[in-house]
Amino acid sequence: MVDRYDIAIVGSGPAGISAAINAKIRNKNIIIFGSKNLSAKLYKAPKINNYLGFPEISGEILKKEFEKHLDKMNINITYERINAVYSMGDYFTLMVNEKIYESTALILATGVEYTKSIKGEEEFLGKGVGYCATCDAPLYKGKIVTIIGYNNEAEEDANYVSELASKTYYIPMYKGEYKLKEKIELLNGKPLEIKGNNFVSKLILNNREIETDGIFILKDSVPPGQLVPGLLIENSHIKVNRNMETNIKGCYAAGDCVGRPYQYMKAAGEGQVAALNAVAYIDSLKKL
Amino acid sequence: MVDRYDIAIVGSGPAGISAAINAKIRNKNIIIFGSKNLSAKLYKAPKINNYLGFPEISGEILKKEFEKHLDKMNINITYERINAVYSMGDYFTLMVNEKIYESTALILATGVEYTKSIKGEEEFLGKGVGYCATCDAPLYKGKIVTIIGYNNEAEEDANYVSELASKTYYIPMYKGEYKLKEKIELLNGKPLEIKGNNFVSKLILNNREIETDGIFILKDSVPPGQLVPGLLIENSHIKVNRNMETNIKGCYAAGDCVGRPYQYMKAAGEGQVAALNAVAYIDSLKKL
Repeated sequence: MVDRYDIAIVGSGPAGISAAINAKIRNKNIIIFGSKNLSAKLYKAPKINNYLGFPEISGEILKKEFEKHLDKMNINITYERINAVYSMGDYFTLMVNEKIYESTALILATGVEYTKSIKGEEEFLGKGVGYCATCDAPLYKGKIVTIIGYNNEAEEDANYVSELASKTYYIPMYKGEYKLKEKIELLNGKPLEIKGNNFVSKLILNNREIETDGIFILKDSVPPGQLVPGLLIENSHIKVNRNMETNIKGCYAAGDCVGRPYQYMKAAGEGQVAALNAVAYIDSLKKL
Repeated sequence: MVDRYDIAIVGSGPAGISAAINAKIRNKNIIIFGSKNLSAKLYKAPKINNYLGFPEISGEILKKEFEKHLDKMNINITYERINAVYSMGDYFTLMVNEKIYESTALILATGVEYTKSIKGEEEFLGKGVGYCATCDAPLYKGKIVTIIGYNNEAEEDANYVSELASKTYYIPMYKGEYKLKEKIELLNGKPLEIKGNNFVSKLILNNREIETDGIFILKDSVPPGQLVPGLLIENSHIKVNRNMETNIKGCYAAGDCVGRPYQYMKAAGEGQVAALNAVAYIDSLKKL
């Protein structure tokens, strides 16, 4: 039996945490999935001038102010990456690596990816290219797998995959120390193109070429259209109305993932609107 | 010759000042009209929990934080009440009591009035009932005029009117000290109904009845549909799309005046979106 939350929030940037705060104030039982940095974009911002109330603040300090707010309201972020969300009619199922969560309403605040896709990535998606290593690893038992990782969390996935694969390459797209099992081969090139016939067979890097059966591209967030099957995307953003409702009943979205301008204040305001409408939606179900 | 601003902002609540900050960052020449309290609603809020970054803050303190932000960016609020705004095609004319301002783009952030209208107010609007005492005072030379004032600024208007009228009543809808000329009669009743035939002739209060030729109702803000002729209103809010565009070219709106939820964060986010789109609009005109 899985606990069912009132609202599940995916993403811990300004939109996600603003949604969490507003839902909590309305006494909803919430879960918010995100990362320790809250938002890489926020954390790395050298100076922010247009967050009303905090002139000339660094992203790092503003992030600390946000954390204080979350602490004061006893909101804890669950550090897990959601791989897929399915609408079940009157509730949602959220898939994490080994776990399942359920919620009545869903708020997507997944941000936008600034990284370009690799040539061939879309063409071979589902044909050797994937975004969830732990989901699909069993398909590559005894095969050659390449992990292109955009953050430290991807290292854990690579370690897991290496237990099944005959050979595992790890290509980090960030700097730092890599905690990888010995059998994993670290490559320091830049991926340029994915090649194959019907299925992936090769990855071209700037400094070499490797044979590979599968490629996992592990970014900070999965594209929302991939994350929630059936979600309506328009001009590469989640389509919402002024109530932050998506095309899926009970599913709301806020922040950069719903469109420009990519700004903290706009995101936080939208998170608030999404939360208050999600609360109204849940209350309307109870009346039925 | 009137100076033309890039953007005129009407209202100094969170939506208006967020718009001002964002427009100023984009190097636009702006003017923002508002009041010393910034927003009566904000200033009077005992405790705010959902303004992300400031847990459990009072409205009075949050207002001070907003003022610091404005000071740091050299934004000064013009303490004047706009009585009417006219779209002139590619610019706007803003009418203040004795002055005229011009701007290329317009952002309305006028909030919402929580006060109900008085019985007969709409019926006699323009037929003895008005919202701008200094505009229409000359019409009441030698006549009996009643001012229903919702804030201290209305006292100045009453003093001005009393120079022309044969008799001036002042009905304050707030508590405090009233700086009124001696010839003005202060009434402490509650206005219940405006009566007359084709034109106002009487005001019924809870404790008496007075004969009057004109009644000025001076609230914190003029209803936006009155303020900007031609502005599309839907369910008593200004109709906007996700870019905060109204039906009038170059005219944007943000905050409570565009709809629920009536929340600071939502307002500030919308002010930002309105400003950035107004900036894009101005830049697009320059390219022509």
